Amino acid sequence: MSENTFTVTFQPSGVVAQARAGEILSDVALAAGVPISLPCGGQGRCGRCKVVITRGEAERKTTVRLTATELEQGYALACQTRVQGDLEVFVPPIEEVIVRRLPTERGAERAYELPAACDWAAKPTLRKVHLQIEPPSLLDNTTDFERVSRELARQYDIRNLTVALPTLRRLARALRDADWDVTLTLEMSTWTSPDGPPRLLDVAPGDQTQTLYGIAVDIGTTSNVVYLVDMVAGRVVDTASAYNLQISCGEDVISRIIYAKKPGGLEHLQRLVVQTINGLIEELCARNNIAGTEIHKMTVAGNTTMTHLFLGLDPEAIRLEPYIPTITHPSPVRAHELGIHINPDATVDCLPGVGAYVGGDITAGVLSSKLYTTDKLSLFIDVGTNGEIVLGNADWLISCACSAGPAFEGAGVQSGMRATVGAIEEVWISAKTYEPTYRTIGDAPPEGICGSGMISLLAEMFISGVMDKAGKLNRTLNTPRIRMGEHGPEYVVAWASETRGKKNDIVITEVDIANLIRAKAAIYAGFSVLTRSVGIELADVEQVLIGGAFGKYIDVEKAIQIGLLPDMPWDRFHYLGNTSALGAYAALLCADMRQAVVEIANKMTYLELSADNTFMDQFTSALFLPHTDTASFPSVMRLLQSVGRRSQETQ
Amino acid sequence: MSENTFTVTFQPSGVVAQARAGEILSDVALAAGVPISLPCGGQGRCGRCKVVITRGEAERKTTVRLTATELEQGYALACQTRVQGDLEVFVPPIEEVIVRRLPTERGAERAYELPAACDWAAKPTLRKVHLQIEPPSLLDNTTDFERVSRELARQYDIRNLTVALPTLRRLARALRDADWDVTLTLEMSTWTSPDGPPRLLDVAPGDQTQTLYGIAVDIGTTSNVVYLVDMVAGRVVDTASAYNLQISCGEDVISRIIYAKKPGGLEHLQRLVVQTINGLIEELCARNNIAGTEIHKMTVAGNTTMTHLFLGLDPEAIRLEPYIPTITHPSPVRAHELGIHINPDATVDCLPGVGAYVGGDITAGVLSSKLYTTDKLSLFIDVGTNGEIVLGNADWLISCACSAGPAFEGAGVQSGMRATVGAIEEVWISAKTYEPTYRTIGDAPPEGICGSGMISLLAEMFISGVMDKAGKLNRTLNTPRIRMGEHGPEYVVAWASETRGKKNDIVITEVDIANLIRAKAAIYAGFSVLTRSVGIELADVEQVLIGGAFGKYIDVEKAIQIGLLPDMPWDRFHYLGNTSALGAYAALLCADMRQAVVEIANKMTYLELSADNTFMDQFTSALFLPHTDTASFPSVMRLLQSVGRRSQETQ
Repeated sequence: MSENTFTVTFQPSGVVAQARAGEILSDVALAAGVPISLPCGGQGRCGRCKVVITRGEAERKTTVRLTATELEQGYALACQTRVQGDLEVFVPPIEEVIVRRLPTERGAERAYELPAACDWAAKPTLRKVHLQIEPPSLLDNTTDFERVSRELARQYDIRNLTVALPTLRRLARALRDADWDVTLTLEMSTWTSPDGPPRLLDVAPGDQTQTLYGIAVDIGTTSNVVYLVDMVAGRVVDTASAYNLQISCGEDVISRIIYAKKPGGLEHLQRLVVQTINGLIEELCARNNIAGTEIHKMTVAGNTTMTHLFLGLDPEAIRLEPYIPTITHPSPVRAHELGIHINPDATVDCLPGVGAYVGGDITAGVLSSKLYTTDKLSLFIDVGTNGEIVLGNADWLISCACSAGPAFEGAGVQSGMRATVGAIEEVWISAKTYEPTYRTIGDAPPEGICGSGMISLLAEMFISGVMDKAGKLNRTLNTPRIRMGEHGPEYVVAWASETRGKKNDIVITEVDIANLIRAKAAIYAGFSVLTRSVGIELADVEQVLIGGAFGKYIDVEKAIQIGLLPDMPWDRFHYLGNTSALGAYAALLCADMRQAVVEIANKMTYLELSADNTFMDQFTSALFLPHTDTASFPSVMRLLQSVGRRSQETQ
Repeated sequence: MSENTFTVTFQPSGVVAQARAGEILSDVALAAGVPISLPCGGQGRCGRCKVVITRGEAERKTTVRLTATELEQGYALACQTRVQGDLEVFVPPIEEVIVRRLPTERGAERAYELPAACDWAAKPTLRKVHLQIEPPSLLDNTTDFERVSRELARQYDIRNLTVALPTLRRLARALRDADWDVTLTLEMSTWTSPDGPPRLLDVAPGDQTQTLYGIAVDIGTTSNVVYLVDMVAGRVVDTASAYNLQISCGEDVISRIIYAKKPGGLEHLQRLVVQTINGLIEELCARNNIAGTEIHKMTVAGNTTMTHLFLGLDPEAIRLEPYIPTITHPSPVRAHELGIHINPDATVDCLPGVGAYVGGDITAGVLSSKLYTTDKLSLFIDVGTNGEIVLGNADWLISCACSAGPAFEGAGVQSGMRATVGAIEEVWISAKTYEPTYRTIGDAPPEGICGSGMISLLAEMFISGVMDKAGKLNRTLNTPRIRMGEHGPEYVVAWASETRGKKNDIVITEVDIANLIRAKAAIYAGFSVLTRSVGIELADVEQVLIGGAFGKYIDVEKAIQIGLLPDMPWDRFHYLGNTSALGAYAALLCADMRQAVVEIANKMTYLELSADNTFMDQFTSALFLPHTDTASFPSVMRLLQSVGRRSQETQ
């Protein structure tokens, strides 16, 4: 062994790897197949790749996200550590949450509504027909494919049939095994060839025209959702969802793009999302007793980066100014090209996006929210890992994306966590004692704070006076909850004794608060710039349509109190559920709806905020609670007065 | 181990396999990865799978093709042997010929002629264009693909660009690495979309419009030929050929179809032909200093079975009455779908066939022979492993296939071999002493007799009186060369002492002769049925166009003497070389030629001989030398007279 090569032993797996001097420890681990979570993409920001150096010499590049105790115990961030000698490294188990399933939406209260304009039965994307074919003879010895085409024209007036290799390979056997009595599955339309020619996707024995399945998929940065759709009845049969397995390579799109640059990184990310979706397909198939090959079409809605990673397109230029995707209207591809476990010849169709940060999830949202057909001036918002906003009506659409970051999804915040069991999702603070009361998901002992909990907490701290409009904690208050912590001033939401682990207090620090305020400011500044760009006031907006998983849990009252949402009557806000998946569902079923998404994408103007010279002003103005322009938040100002706290700060 | 499972040890490899009682030995070997040659597809006909049972008990189903000595020594046909106990088996090495290369046609005397109607420059299938593109900016942030499309429309008026996944995945990187100065490779036309839309196949840095490559491939049952074509200059740059690696699974199409039925057999055959072609591509690329990815289109001409196996289509129904292919006009597929090592997005286009036994090699032949544009009544024949015949002119075409079998390719004949070094290719026999003189390929000591040698030998034996018109040897002649052998009467062409191995005499038996006469009779009967079916006489044929590898070596004089070819002036016969590859070459280069092949296939009538009630009569009449109807062979009759042998047999 050369003197510049060292041996790294990973525990508890016992995997032994060779490393060059100076090599990054997380690279060594990943190359050796030792799973290490890199939510921030290996930038040393998130602290999730903590390992313990139990023996040997390593250089710690930075120590952010490590406590003094942890440093003393030998903790290091694997992505920030260089190998300098033979090492033994203990790798703590990756958070279970990564593979934990989200609660299924099965039997949810909400119906899976289709846009009113969706007359799917008139122009279906898929069709099944039953054919009884005269077997060949020496006197009628045309080929199998010609014979099928001929009968299809004769019996159903469907002409110009095409077929691709996977189906063609099964054709001869399928026809003979079924004694020439078969059901054909035909793709009648795709957005690139809306009027055909029809394509033969499958041949099954006998009459099987009663069943026909497709899936609509929402590929979120955080979670993926699959709707199993009965294409005969035109309804959602079942749904399943799971965290996107890519989370282990980065929590937000930027981290994933950085990860994709690593050797093999893009291919790895592509495989992970396909693995996530295949797992959900398997779950749905098992539960509904169908085979994967019985699924004959898939539509996908995702943001531009997720769509790129799903298709295996290099996303790097999306991250760098001037933020250029490879493509926003990708042509349909086949399931076997991507490794999706449905019928190998089935079309996988990604809904079109508008720009680097307004993707197919947003055009799908505009479709399913019916914004594109309404006369009302509407604001559509989808706050997920990113925040996208669309303003408009049936005549015009303008959109932008706010790089809110994942703060509201629990990342970049010390006690942040995703919305799973044990997450604090609602908080109340007494304006007298400054003592909090909270509610957790599943009523379990608290482990951290999720996004809706953060909004609730921020609003309560502000209204109760624990924190001022700039997000600074009031350290003059007589409460042990406000104190100096390792990372500066902090407020204790739950004492260690109340928590599941009973080890650490759950706190929110001024640094966390600043992160959250920046996130809400980015979104609100988006509203302001968008409305100003078309010369209207935010108050003129007649309805606010909220999509995305985050919207499901948002508390409008609290969100207005911190200035995340504009201050308007609550009845103007509408929660629409997973607008992305619902849009994919409509486009799956109905050729006209699929064309409508193309028109939405073509019609929508994309405003690049970083190229807008008013954005920074708007952002800065929004860095206060609820906002520098207090006149825009009359209900919040009235509330502050009513709790008897008309401090000098408010004017 | 169960009492019904046995251990089989293969030598010299030492591979140990488990076998069930009664399992066929060749199946055990193939499953264990021990290569065993099955030219007849495991039917016990060819004797090429000989092995020696050196220990243990096995049941020999049949013992054809084994001599008494061999039986005594423990030889068995692996495909005809059932395992009955623990065995040790010696597997002799597979004939080297299977991987030996055919002599390259490089620098051959023949030019690679294109049909006169081929104006490829006017309607090229591929095109390269050089584009200098303005890089994106915040004010012009359209996607990479849209930007390329826009510039292509602006600078070259090429619109509606499409792109598939493999190329799209490289696009972002390629544009940036080249600083937005690129050469695009575009597919302008395929037969299914002759007028586009154009498809983006590749992006290369700078101006690379000077080079553009395609390949035209002839997939023969026996040998595969690849032409490397310069698509800018419109000429063949180089060629390479090799035996089709599928030979190890069967020498003729029927054996291959039978092999394809075995578990995994079809996939194995598909891989073998792709492996053969990839080897030739690699050879051409190395010799011409280009990368495989620089090859942007491939056309394929092959018989219907070869096309099915190449595409991975189940060929079984081709073999069974009423002989139905899956498809005769397959749509273009992509190189990556088949595993062909050229640009992964390149189109692989199989030329259309007419029926189960008249394939794309024949339509390609009609194209390159110019038969489809001539006023002369023409007969086109392609004698390969099968014999296909086309009769017609510019106005009409009728075709049939004669199941001649592989006798003229050296299979099914005791001393038969393919046309490689050591093969007897020409024979002369003294009409007085009955002693033969022969010439071998490469002037090497003889090892066997190839197809042209068989024709020559048969003609000489007939003319010299060694054999009568029915193919019976004249055992009354005073020569040691005619004798009773193990398989009946035989004629010794070369004594063991003259041969390379110095072990066995090279003989032709009456059984061999009968096989050869059946083969020539099938072909001649095809001529007769085809001409009669349109109400003309064979003598009316104005030209006979001979294609295929076999035609290259055929001696017209001898072929007429045995009644394989019709008796007409020699100047009506034209050798055209590899008409299949030449047709693929024209269709590769020129969109109009590709359409012409479709028209040829659509126009051509296919006569199924087994459904024709005159075929058997014609076949029976042709089972004599030269033919029962001696009046049709005046030149042969004159020759028989001139050698002074007007025997009572000829009238």
